[in-house]
Amino acid sequence: MFNEISSLHEECGVFGVWGADNANYLTYLGLHSLQHRGQEGAGIVTNENGKLHSYRNLGLLSQVFANKQRLYDLVGNAAIGHVRYSTAGENKIENVQPLLFDFTDEQFALAHNGNLTNSITLKKELESKGHIFKSSSDSEVLMHLIKISTEEKQIDKIKDALNKIQGGFAYLLLTKDSLIVALDSHGFRPLSIGKLNNGSYVVASETCALDAVNAEFVRDVLPGELITISDKGMEIDHWTNDTKLAFCSMEFVYFARADSDLLGINVHTARKRMGKRLAKEQPVDGDIVVGVPNSSLSAASGFAEESGLPYEMGLIKNQYMGREFIQPTQELREKSVRQKLAAVKGVVRDKKVILVDDSIVRGTTCAYIVRMLREAGAKEVHLRIASPQFKFPCFFGIDIQKKSELLASHKSIEEMRKMFDADSLEFLSEDGLVDAIGLKTDGPDTGLDLSYFDGNYPAYLYDYAETDA
Amino acid sequence: MFNEISSLHEECGVFGVWGADNANYLTYLGLHSLQHRGQEGAGIVTNENGKLHSYRNLGLLSQVFANKQRLYDLVGNAAIGHVRYSTAGENKIENVQPLLFDFTDEQFALAHNGNLTNSITLKKELESKGHIFKSSSDSEVLMHLIKISTEEKQIDKIKDALNKIQGGFAYLLLTKDSLIVALDSHGFRPLSIGKLNNGSYVVASETCALDAVNAEFVRDVLPGELITISDKGMEIDHWTNDTKLAFCSMEFVYFARADSDLLGINVHTARKRMGKRLAKEQPVDGDIVVGVPNSSLSAASGFAEESGLPYEMGLIKNQYMGREFIQPTQELREKSVRQKLAAVKGVVRDKKVILVDDSIVRGTTCAYIVRMLREAGAKEVHLRIASPQFKFPCFFGIDIQKKSELLASHKSIEEMRKMFDADSLEFLSEDGLVDAIGLKTDGPDTGLDLSYFDGNYPAYLYDYAETDA
Amino acid sequence: MFNEISSLHEECGVFGVWGADNANYLTYLGLHSLQHRGQEGAGIVTNENGKLHSYRNLGLLSQVFANKQRLYDLVGNAAIGHVRYSTAGENKIENVQPLLFDFTDEQFALAHNGNLTNSITLKKELESKGHIFKSSSDSEVLMHLIKISTEEKQIDKIKDALNKIQGGFAYLLLTKDSLIVALDSHGFRPLSIGKLNNGSYVVASETCALDAVNAEFVRDVLPGELITISDKGMEIDHWTNDTKLAFCSMEFVYFARADSDLLGINVHTARKRMGKRLAKEQPVDGDIVVGVPNSSLSAASGFAEESGLPYEMGLIKNQYMGREFIQPTQELREKSVRQKLAAVKGVVRDKKVILVDDSIVRGTTCAYIVRMLREAGAKEVHLRIASPQFKFPCFFGIDIQKKSELLASHKSIEEMRKMFDADSLEFLSEDGLVDAIGLKTDGPDTGLDLSYFDGNYPAYLYDYAETDA
Amino acid sequence: MFNEISSLHEECGVFGVWGADNANYLTYLGLHSLQHRGQEGAGIVTNENGKLHSYRNLGLLSQVFANKQRLYDLVGNAAIGHVRYSTAGENKIENVQPLLFDFTDEQFALAHNGNLTNSITLKKELESKGHIFKSSSDSEVLMHLIKISTEEKQIDKIKDALNKIQGGFAYLLLTKDSLIVALDSHGFRPLSIGKLNNGSYVVASETCALDAVNAEFVRDVLPGELITISDKGMEIDHWTNDTKLAFCSMEFVYFARADSDLLGINVHTARKRMGKRLAKEQPVDGDIVVGVPNSSLSAASGFAEESGLPYEMGLIKNQYMGREFIQPTQELREKSVRQKLAAVKGVVRDKKVILVDDSIVRGTTCAYIVRMLREAGAKEVHLRIASPQFKFPCFFGIDIQKKSELLASHKSIEEMRKMFDADSLEFLSEDGLVDAIGLKTDGPDTGLDLSYFDGNYPAYLYDYAETDA
Repeated sequence: MFNEISSLHEECGVFGVWGADNANYLTYLGLHSLQHRGQEGAGIVTNENGKLHSYRNLGLLSQVFANKQRLYDLVGNAAIGHVRYSTAGENKIENVQPLLFDFTDEQFALAHNGNLTNSITLKKELESKGHIFKSSSDSEVLMHLIKISTEEKQIDKIKDALNKIQGGFAYLLLTKDSLIVALDSHGFRPLSIGKLNNGSYVVASETCALDAVNAEFVRDVLPGELITISDKGMEIDHWTNDTKLAFCSMEFVYFARADSDLLGINVHTARKRMGKRLAKEQPVDGDIVVGVPNSSLSAASGFAEESGLPYEMGLIKNQYMGREFIQPTQELREKSVRQKLAAVKGVVRDKKVILVDDSIVRGTTCAYIVRMLREAGAKEVHLRIASPQFKFPCFFGIDIQKKSELLASHKSIEEMRKMFDADSLEFLSEDGLVDAIGLKTDGPDTGLDLSYFDGNYPAYLYDYAETDA
Repeated sequence: MFNEISSLHEECGVFGVWGADNANYLTYLGLHSLQHRGQEGAGIVTNENGKLHSYRNLGLLSQVFANKQRLYDLVGNAAIGHVRYSTAGENKIENVQPLLFDFTDEQFALAHNGNLTNSITLKKELESKGHIFKSSSDSEVLMHLIKISTEEKQIDKIKDALNKIQGGFAYLLLTKDSLIVALDSHGFRPLSIGKLNNGSYVVASETCALDAVNAEFVRDVLPGELITISDKGMEIDHWTNDTKLAFCSMEFVYFARADSDLLGINVHTARKRMGKRLAKEQPVDGDIVVGVPNSSLSAASGFAEESGLPYEMGLIKNQYMGREFIQPTQELREKSVRQKLAAVKGVVRDKKVILVDDSIVRGTTCAYIVRMLREAGAKEVHLRIASPQFKFPCFFGIDIQKKSELLASHKSIEEMRKMFDADSLEFLSEDGLVDAIGLKTDGPDTGLDLSYFDGNYPAYLYDYAETDA
Repeated sequence: MFNEISSLHEECGVFGVWGADNANYLTYLGLHSLQHRGQEGAGIVTNENGKLHSYRNLGLLSQVFANKQRLYDLVGNAAIGHVRYSTAGENKIENVQPLLFDFTDEQFALAHNGNLTNSITLKKELESKGHIFKSSSDSEVLMHLIKISTEEKQIDKIKDALNKIQGGFAYLLLTKDSLIVALDSHGFRPLSIGKLNNGSYVVASETCALDAVNAEFVRDVLPGELITISDKGMEIDHWTNDTKLAFCSMEFVYFARADSDLLGINVHTARKRMGKRLAKEQPVDGDIVVGVPNSSLSAASGFAEESGLPYEMGLIKNQYMGREFIQPTQELREKSVRQKLAAVKGVVRDKKVILVDDSIVRGTTCAYIVRMLREAGAKEVHLRIASPQFKFPCFFGIDIQKKSELLASHKSIEEMRKMFDADSLEFLSEDGLVDAIGLKTDGPDTGLDLSYFDGNYPAYLYDYAETDA
Repeated sequence: MFNEISSLHEECGVFGVWGADNANYLTYLGLHSLQHRGQEGAGIVTNENGKLHSYRNLGLLSQVFANKQRLYDLVGNAAIGHVRYSTAGENKIENVQPLLFDFTDEQFALAHNGNLTNSITLKKELESKGHIFKSSSDSEVLMHLIKISTEEKQIDKIKDALNKIQGGFAYLLLTKDSLIVALDSHGFRPLSIGKLNNGSYVVASETCALDAVNAEFVRDVLPGELITISDKGMEIDHWTNDTKLAFCSMEFVYFARADSDLLGINVHTARKRMGKRLAKEQPVDGDIVVGVPNSSLSAASGFAEESGLPYEMGLIKNQYMGREFIQPTQELREKSVRQKLAAVKGVVRDKKVILVDDSIVRGTTCAYIVRMLREAGAKEVHLRIASPQFKFPCFFGIDIQKKSELLASHKSIEEMRKMFDADSLEFLSEDGLVDAIGLKTDGPDTGLDLSYFDGNYPAYLYDYAETDA
């Protein structure tokens, strides 16, 4: 899957820190390394002795803070930050996170990665009681639930509220005196904790953000945990004990950055294993192995290593591509692909090319890439996909919620092969994927959410139960 | 050499087209694929029935034409364009090309890739006659020489002027009725001609730009050629017959895009051969081979293939890095590197890493990358450079003109190894480089300018003869 | 009072239209003529067949819609718009109006000119019930009150909510099928209705906005009225019958544009009468009469006419002054005044100048203007203020809510005269002001809110009752 | 003439200072007060110990230096600056002044207000010798002439060059060690010298700029003078003794700011006298006198004073109008006028209005203003123009060079009256204008250039001699 123009996007990345003088700058660095998880908007809220300061806007982090004064103004020694992806209709500043709530007597900020499956129902209930929502994001529901909780203590209000929401979520909450971290009961989304040299804690969607701020990895946040970081240190609690790990397998396949470790497993290494396993499962007679840059290069090099074929740069990505060139129509999208991606004639001419891609979602650019390789002189193009057929939508944090958008849900492999004009097309098996990821669990469970491929959702879908999933 | 923050920059990329309805858009696409040759400024001049229209500004092409109307306004069916790199002091809009000359009775536009070695002398002579220069670019000298030529015909004036300048140059001139192309007598800089479906000619610094506009490669421009493209087709002439090919070897090592063919040789493939040869010349006991992204990945994969070691993604580049983060001080530069480049802990931990870089110029980031790998847990770091020691400045189109800026000119290999804290450091031999490039020439000459490594300049240096070269 | 740098600012201007194809453009024109009522932010919400579209941002209207596509995108045939002034701390985009509420089952937009005196109490009550506010503007309270009303019909919910708020307000509400207009029970703020050629209704804070869209004046909105404009025409109702007119006298003195008619009285003409009355009440021996541009020119010409002295341009305002030059410190403010305002040496030299200003609030620039005139050679400077001493803060829609900020509240006339270094200083009497405005009422009441001058507030102050008013 | 949308524009304003620490800021202030003389572009060049620094761009001064760092970077204790008006076709950054010339061995900056009448001929001659112009501005010709002068000393080169150019000009030249000031032999354009508190000299197009920087007026620059200001003080020389004063009468009528003194005469006062004289020459039975804001308010108040009629604000100008709203078509221009200018219904309704305008050039907005007054209820509209019929183009510094653009050149007064739908239309006589200005000269000459009205050009027109003048 050629990443920037695909239709599959992570909903967000989050970062938080408590107890560091340059909380604003650390959060900037952390978010910068999480930019691949969301490019539509970014924001940071800092805590200066209990007073929260905020800035957020649409665009890449570097655009949002192009005026550096915006960042300098966010003083304080604690912060949370967010990078966001959103579907077109919701792409407005009100939805950019962190959401900051200015109550008469307190302030509260919230950053969320994931998707709630009962937020529509909850929102309607709250509106019927006169509640007004400031955003159209599902993330805001939690705040309303906290405010109407009849519990006494704030932490109990939060537990109360967390027990009312369903779905996938990694929440960071910033209050006047703490940074609160919560993960859903299945641990759908990644969330890790690190420690700075000065002993302060940071939390981030991926470990690459811990590296970005020179923090040492401490532990991953586990399903159902509710962690409070404050001047008193880190306190680990649970909002539920009814948990069962079902970590998003697509984080390994596509979303996460290659240098991150997810549940202790390095992503590049896992992808390379996917490529090796794919080479074993679906070998093919070819001259060279080519990966779709950048997301499929690890899998491609694994395929090459296993098959003993040369790994070649048969496609090259233009590194000076801005997002502004993403185009609304198919025709313009093709031109856009040509601007982003080029076949290397001198490499692929007269060659039997094994093209490795990480996944096929809508398949819109796949056909184009095969054509580009043929125009560049490739004799044969064999497509190998380093994950199983993507047939079922996700409801726990990815923005594809319609089966009809997923090519593999209504096309056979042979139909897709023809559509792409490839000489052959094969996918990694689900078992192969599980083995390649190599997550160790105590019982027979894989600990992974593989519903993309088999439709077995680890949790009830609530508001989405009646959709075409 | 980690490309975006290095100190070595190509002076420019040029693109031209004659006879295409969407000359503006084609030139935009062509320049976009040449953006790696210059990121400081960009411009396009179009020809609408003899009337020239121009827009240029500082910044990346996509920034210069962020307001798309700027591009739409450049109507006409012929165009030349330019992307520019410049040293800091000269980074002003007056120097952004193409330069457009509005004479009372004619218009003339000019785009130049290269560096003239006698421009200072020529400029002083012209100023002493009362001439006024509109830019501080050496490129403008040619126009003044054309205007004072006593020849009758314009083409003879141009020949006259070309015979007065020395150095490396690829010139595109746009007049009311033609696109004129000239290459210096050594062919220092690359320049290729292609043909569109409709039979129109395009010319570009690299073949990747021909691919970008779907043009078929026709031929490379040869040393001393003066080519006129007009409604009558392409006419090939010479402004001198005293020519001797000395093509810039650094184009193969670093500058050119991996998918371009230079003198018929694919760049990625040549780089892979450099890596293979390096593995033969300087083998080392290691666990994995890691390339500095993106420019050294080809050489690294060649090294891995030859040595039979796994090629791994031990360094990852953040693709969301804007140029605005380039920093003036060493300390900020290191932070900037951390933002751009990260070591992949999960890959390099406890490994003997063979780190392949394409070249060492100032060496400023090399030490930092080794340190990053060690912090990420690498047991050993063996540095292998896929080109010889870069000891001598360039005067034919690259912006390093001071020997003191070149680390290898005043440090031994062992001194550099210590400085970088590498376990070993070795370079490709000059013979190895020549063989890896594999340019076929009729005689004993290599056809390459290798002066970077041995100081044997293929041409007299004129204004620079007394410098510390 | 030299308007742009003074400390007295109207809270807002509102405009609405129902049933016109180019509702967006009409609202833009209307707001443009109301720009003097607020320069900190602007926004427009349109109604396209029941669907509301919105754009708002900080800055002048022309800056907010500098990208004209922003305006074109606001399709629909009904709209409300708002220009906003705010105090510094609240100057953020969340507070820019119209506020748009996206409920699951309906949309609602709201624009407000005025100030609620019990909003703090109401907001706290609502928050204690779990309500979350999206802005820190008092205007939003109304929406929450509408949502929690137990009435059945929307119009009854609105009446219910209006009966809970206190203070000065002119509200425009845009729903899927109507434009609803409400004025407080004292009619503190101006609000007028006009009719376009096509029979559609428009509503605006001042009649100058009706003129701007070529609408014919129909009537002023009266205290306590609740007017619904829809496809069925205009329906006039009341949300309360307990009304008593107390129209803001400062609208006549300073706020309103000279070409507007307030309650049927032309503002320029009223101001000219203030100047005439002032000349009668406080005559002085002078050579020329000079007004502080632009707000005091009407009064100055009236003073000149009555006194038989020449009306001269002794001060000139730089029309190319942008708001960006307003400065935070006194020193910079003086330099800023010099950039905005200059004394005309050729006019004032050796003259006894009668300087007419409309009012003195903080008095910060007054001293500077007198000094400027003296430096320009004025022999004497007699200051005449065309309104009474401004001693008491306003709580019904102007942003001065601290007595300490009002110079006349703690300085005698003689103290002020010395402070300004004027040869004499006199104010218009309160009776003089009332007579000059000339509002006809049935009973003995003036129909005006004169509390600025005498502290007799026409309504209870609720949350402000304990302030230093 | 309603100023901002009229077709008559001054070509420029210039400002210079030598020997002041904050030369950049003083020049900014000076230019700001000269902004009415040109709004298309602005620039400043400073001298820091002989090294010149420059910034210039299109737009208003406040836009050009919106990023204040641009101004701070212009260090040094001497400077020249320029605000520019240009015709559409030439509105490009290359033409924005001051022009900075970077020669190999020296730097030179130049700012020019005026128009050369033989620049086309000179430019062609220079180009035929191989010279290349960096701008399409006539101002640059002088620099080329200086460079080709065979004189030894720089000041003699400059004299040599000045003697070759014809037309109207006020030149400021900044060199490494001096600020050089030159005025044409007729003194067409205003230029005055002032002195700062610290004894340093400043020079400016109008005295309002001297006031803006708190400088004391010293003297006007006289025709043919060549003044050198340096660390040695001010040295007054002449480049020619063949001089004859013919000061531009339109500076008094329209261009100059009301607070400036031209040749010792205050502009507002002169305009008021024009209005008085007009009232005597062309009395009319009316109720009120209304001026077109802002340029005609002085004349209108003079008319009112003389006629004993009330001076009223019958038209109001929106002070929040940005230039971005100037529109290319007549229809849009009318809408634009409505946004800028409104009739005050409450003032003009049922009144016989005497409308005073300063001049009629193209007459495009005049008809519209009369219509606006009638729509606002004016019973009669009598148009009185405070200058004679404008029939002949200007070639000495104003951008109207085509007779056909001047309404009065091809329409009788009665034709114009009908076109404007005015009840009457009358102009001030030429004698009346001369008397009102009141310039004292030794001989019978008026000392004024009145060619606009009578076609008697004070100098030969050279390149323009054959035009339809």
